[in-house]
Amino acid sequence: MGEKSKGSFTLPGESGYEKLTLQMAEKWGADVIRDSDGTVLSDEIVEAGYDIYSTICIIREHNEWAKEHMDKLQQTFLMSKPVMAQGSEVTIHLLDGYFTEQFVVNDSELSRKFWQIYDRTTETEISEIWNYEKETGNVTVRNVIPYHEYTVNFFAYRIWEEISMYNHVTNNWDKEHLMPIDPRTKEAQDYLYQWLDTWCREHPATTVVRFTSMFYNFVWIWGDDERNRSRFSDWGSYDFTVSPEALLAFEEEYRYMLTSEDFINQGKFHVTHMPPGEKQLDYMRFTNKFVVEFGKKLVNLVHEYGKKAYVFYDDSWVGVEPYSDLFGEFGFDGLIKCVFNGYEARLCAGARVGTHELRLHPYLFPVGLGGTPTFMEGGNPTADAKVYWNRIRRALLRQPVDRIGLGGYLHLVEDFPDFCDYIEEVADEFRKIKDFHKAGDVYTLPCRVAVLHSWGYIRSWTLSGHFHETYMHDLIHVNEALAGLPVNVQFINFEDVKAGRLQDVDVVINAGRAGTAWSGGDAWRDDKVLSALYSFVAGGGAFIGINEPSAVEGYQNFFRMAPVLGVDEDTGAKVCHGRFKYETEEIGDLIPKGANIKGKENRMVSDENTKVLAEDSGMPALTVRDFGKGKGIYLSGFEITNANTRLLLNLILFGAGQELDQNYLTDNVDTECAYYPSSGQMVVINNSNEVQSTSIMTVKGRMDFTLQPFETQMKEIL
Amino acid sequence: MGEKSKGSFTLPGESGYEKLTLQMAEKWGADVIRDSDGTVLSDEIVEAGYDIYSTICIIREHNEWAKEHMDKLQQTFLMSKPVMAQGSEVTIHLLDGYFTEQFVVNDSELSRKFWQIYDRTTETEISEIWNYEKETGNVTVRNVIPYHEYTVNFFAYRIWEEISMYNHVTNNWDKEHLMPIDPRTKEAQDYLYQWLDTWCREHPATTVVRFTSMFYNFVWIWGDDERNRSRFSDWGSYDFTVSPEALLAFEEEYRYMLTSEDFINQGKFHVTHMPPGEKQLDYMRFTNKFVVEFGKKLVNLVHEYGKKAYVFYDDSWVGVEPYSDLFGEFGFDGLIKCVFNGYEARLCAGARVGTHELRLHPYLFPVGLGGTPTFMEGGNPTADAKVYWNRIRRALLRQPVDRIGLGGYLHLVEDFPDFCDYIEEVADEFRKIKDFHKAGDVYTLPCRVAVLHSWGYIRSWTLSGHFHETYMHDLIHVNEALAGLPVNVQFINFEDVKAGRLQDVDVVINAGRAGTAWSGGDAWRDDKVLSALYSFVAGGGAFIGINEPSAVEGYQNFFRMAPVLGVDEDTGAKVCHGRFKYETEEIGDLIPKGANIKGKENRMVSDENTKVLAEDSGMPALTVRDFGKGKGIYLSGFEITNANTRLLLNLILFGAGQELDQNYLTDNVDTECAYYPSSGQMVVINNSNEVQSTSIMTVKGRMDFTLQPFETQMKEIL
Repeated sequence: MGEKSKGSFTLPGESGYEKLTLQMAEKWGADVIRDSDGTVLSDEIVEAGYDIYSTICIIREHNEWAKEHMDKLQQTFLMSKPVMAQGSEVTIHLLDGYFTEQFVVNDSELSRKFWQIYDRTTETEISEIWNYEKETGNVTVRNVIPYHEYTVNFFAYRIWEEISMYNHVTNNWDKEHLMPIDPRTKEAQDYLYQWLDTWCREHPATTVVRFTSMFYNFVWIWGDDERNRSRFSDWGSYDFTVSPEALLAFEEEYRYMLTSEDFINQGKFHVTHMPPGEKQLDYMRFTNKFVVEFGKKLVNLVHEYGKKAYVFYDDSWVGVEPYSDLFGEFGFDGLIKCVFNGYEARLCAGARVGTHELRLHPYLFPVGLGGTPTFMEGGNPTADAKVYWNRIRRALLRQPVDRIGLGGYLHLVEDFPDFCDYIEEVADEFRKIKDFHKAGDVYTLPCRVAVLHSWGYIRSWTLSGHFHETYMHDLIHVNEALAGLPVNVQFINFEDVKAGRLQDVDVVINAGRAGTAWSGGDAWRDDKVLSALYSFVAGGGAFIGINEPSAVEGYQNFFRMAPVLGVDEDTGAKVCHGRFKYETEEIGDLIPKGANIKGKENRMVSDENTKVLAEDSGMPALTVRDFGKGKGIYLSGFEITNANTRLLLNLILFGAGQELDQNYLTDNVDTECAYYPSSGQMVVINNSNEVQSTSIMTVKGRMDFTLQPFETQMKEIL
Repeated sequence: MGEKSKGSFTLPGESGYEKLTLQMAEKWGADVIRDSDGTVLSDEIVEAGYDIYSTICIIREHNEWAKEHMDKLQQTFLMSKPVMAQGSEVTIHLLDGYFTEQFVVNDSELSRKFWQIYDRTTETEISEIWNYEKETGNVTVRNVIPYHEYTVNFFAYRIWEEISMYNHVTNNWDKEHLMPIDPRTKEAQDYLYQWLDTWCREHPATTVVRFTSMFYNFVWIWGDDERNRSRFSDWGSYDFTVSPEALLAFEEEYRYMLTSEDFINQGKFHVTHMPPGEKQLDYMRFTNKFVVEFGKKLVNLVHEYGKKAYVFYDDSWVGVEPYSDLFGEFGFDGLIKCVFNGYEARLCAGARVGTHELRLHPYLFPVGLGGTPTFMEGGNPTADAKVYWNRIRRALLRQPVDRIGLGGYLHLVEDFPDFCDYIEEVADEFRKIKDFHKAGDVYTLPCRVAVLHSWGYIRSWTLSGHFHETYMHDLIHVNEALAGLPVNVQFINFEDVKAGRLQDVDVVINAGRAGTAWSGGDAWRDDKVLSALYSFVAGGGAFIGINEPSAVEGYQNFFRMAPVLGVDEDTGAKVCHGRFKYETEEIGDLIPKGANIKGKENRMVSDENTKVLAEDSGMPALTVRDFGKGKGIYLSGFEITNANTRLLLNLILFGAGQELDQNYLTDNVDTECAYYPSSGQMVVINNSNEVQSTSIMTVKGRMDFTLQPFETQMKEIL
């Protein structure tokens, strides 16, 4: 260990700070130098013998061409703000309430074929004659019913690329607004292809072209009212990929036409947190294929120049899902994921691609998320880095990635020498963990967990964005806990259940609010799903249901797994039905000290054999129940903490009929352990900001550890 | 005032305590003496010159006849406990889980025609051949699908009248179980008629026959597990009136046949808190008519003997609803309502009947509700009586009844002289209030409130039982608050809205959980309901929505009154939609000190013009919004307290565009005032257990009052 470890680290270089760049490259063991949005690399850096990543976002930074081809900009469907009729005629200003720096109406003849007028009071399309006045942007509808609400679905061009827009508005920039080009037409494709060809020719030193994803941003619709700027944002939705041309191509391929309402969906759009419909899945597949096809051409072009093509998975990532079965066809050489959390590290680590790289936080920016100070007065980037690394590290102990790196303005680190030292530690630690994995698989408990939701494999680990965008969903907390647990984890959907996939599973987890994609919604009407799960549990499996698992209206129970769980929720019709009285019971050390499950309203014990292990305000919060040879386990919610993470592990082991007290499990919930049998390496981590002691049973007997806050200890025990 | 007031008071006499009976009759100013369940009146009492009430419960106390006519007992449909098939056959023990002292299977040939087998996993009736084994009470079904759940709907006789059953089990009685006779057949009717005829003849001293309601008890299904004894109880449901004979008669009258599933409803039965379906309403009407028809015969018989017939409205009250348009046909001379709360007093006071009488609490029993000591060591019946009278008094200030009284064992008051004194005070106070009303109407603010729900007028004031059975519903709190407010109150349903009834209304209140009868459920799909309400508010009315008003899935908003309220609830599909940020605002003294509104999850401000007046945990809890000339007002919940009651009054006045500071409104929320212009009488009450001071503006200027705990002060100001 005496020699300094090197490699697997990507450093953001910065022109004008050549000395610092090379000094940090040495300190952190970098083998790659990259540019960042807003920085350039000088010749001195480029020629210093490092591999060079160059970032490009293919669909923006072409304003000259865009201005000449305003009909080639990206679009979206919008629904006008509902207008209530006072008389027999309504006038609707299409862009009322929308941010007009983001949208202009596409009022071409072709576009208008797709517009639809709805009576939202009755939810019916109306065929009344309507009139569009181009000058005012108003639609007038006659013969309407007084005191009904009317809306128009229409196409709008997006004249400001959303990431550029966000940066402008947040940082008060006054640069030109970048416009997003839609590669849907041949003309736009030809232009972009030529542009990339030129770019590659003009950047001979670049060894890796890092695409800031591909073409289509996640959906982000802004309003004109600063009190409600973000009218709709969905990090997984395909709603920003649509255009008249896309719909015509879709019809040709799928032999049916989509309507504007298929996208508008009563103004709700397509929320990734809700179960997808058949048409939505068709359209997503259609677009995914399109993105892959044109993306592949660009990747091939990069390869022709002898460069590698990596994709940065964020922002314009729609159609780039790494767990789509089409992802491999892009031909990317690497996948780079910016990570705040362990589940994002697992998402990256599990993707089928050559090189997996993590972009760590904090970015080298003056401010971080939500405008909090980072690399400036009042900031503590080292503390931030520790928190993030603490979340990532446990995931990397389970499954490795190939590289880590940073992004941003390197000069900012000059005032934070402790940060530079800490990153040096992290880089070394990372390289060691990577080596342990290389020597052989990490020790994993023989316990196979399947997370069951509407999306299944394609949205493995993630819901639809970062943790802070999805924190209100139990499942992101579950995924984050699972990311570092010593069990096998897979993500399945309801088709998988029916196709017999439960054969390879010990424990199924279903977690979420009723009706959402994470709970499953209407999928639970399918008796084949139910009987497969009942049979799975009866045969010895475990079903862990969290919050409103398997919930759907219209049956004797709201939770369709109630026969297994022995817990149900009253949605109103059982307000005068009996609930089984219970005494809370204890089962060994199943609930670790400090674990905490918040009760939810209207939950009820629905079976006499249900054991309540925890309650909150008179409601069952944690229950277990035998069902055949297996178990039903109910949790009214799940929020990630160290103790709750251990609770989840305990419940998984209990469900799978395994001992809680096993080799390589720590006896302190604030610590975790990974063991690499081939190399005999044991890694013990402290997931807390306080000193922790823990004792661990190993093949060599019991061992004791005392760890400093967030410390990693490595010990060869063979 | 010097002379002792007398009359309008019913005293429970008790044989063996003749002296006490007459002494208390004098003290409390009684003009009527009654017997009670478990007491008799001796000749000395009967002949003392008082009117005499005798209580009878017509359908029980006939065990001899019942035993000879077990097929004439009352029945119900039951659904067997779901059994999950393990193979291709299931055996279902029909009464598994039910209290077999309450039920026996009716396995007659006619009964079995109505049985149905359901696959509850698919919610489909199955037509597989099934077999019933009489000896074991088992049904066996073949060719079932493994891991599906099966149930049988079947008829069961009720062999233990539920009130008798409850008293037995609660007090460990070992008397014979009373069986309820179903008056559906001519044979049973003849028997009961004859019995009543004999009874009347044998009780010449009785001046009033007090029917303990009519024939059918509210639904109360018991289970065999003491941990879940009350499997289903619903104080408004008609499910205990059904029988094969009733269904045949229904078919003849309504020209279609009801099925067992029409009653079983997936094991949910017909919960009064849920919106009624068409078939349910037909069946209720059919049964209501039947109860009235046979009830009227009995009332006529009583009249033939020169006696009056009063009905006690509780227990076997199904089909006796005082706000049914059929109620008048019974020909009752009086309605007696036992009251814990103000809304029950209003229910009684508003009924169309000659004499309105309240049975006050506490009853003269050793223990009260839930087994708490009352007239025994550890009890404080005077304190209890004060709390109940405090709730009733404010209702009686708004609308009078004719009489009050007590029930139970009179001898128990001997040890509680302070109780005797307090009842003397109450009786005097009651008679004075009654006199004030007699002299002329109470002063009421020119403000007409309509409570809107699925049942409307027929369930005016009540939901389906007492407050403590329905406390989880916002509306019972609202009704209780309204019971004593100086405004006009009516109860309307959605048909009334469409029929133009909002013309006579200033403020509409809709309060409850989504999908319930109180919120309205599917009624909100009707655009005619919506446009009537939108138009009502736009024209100057106010809509006060509480909890999940106007909520139904399938539209752009979950709250269909969101265009008016400017508040909506996210049921999952709007988790990534924007919410308007707000600062809480103040509007004058709208929110009194001490008022408290608990926030609910997922509520969102959906409009820029919504003003948030109170919030809880980042959710809007109280909002107001202008809509046309009127107002939308949203409350996330409502729990009755003195301050919240005043808040509701303030919101009603604000909604109706009236001043909060008016004559005869107190400036202390713990006090209230009623004014009777004809007599110039002002009554000021203290609704708290502490001394209160208040100032009141009157036509004679401002007046100040200081009141002892719960005190009533009366002052003639003209």
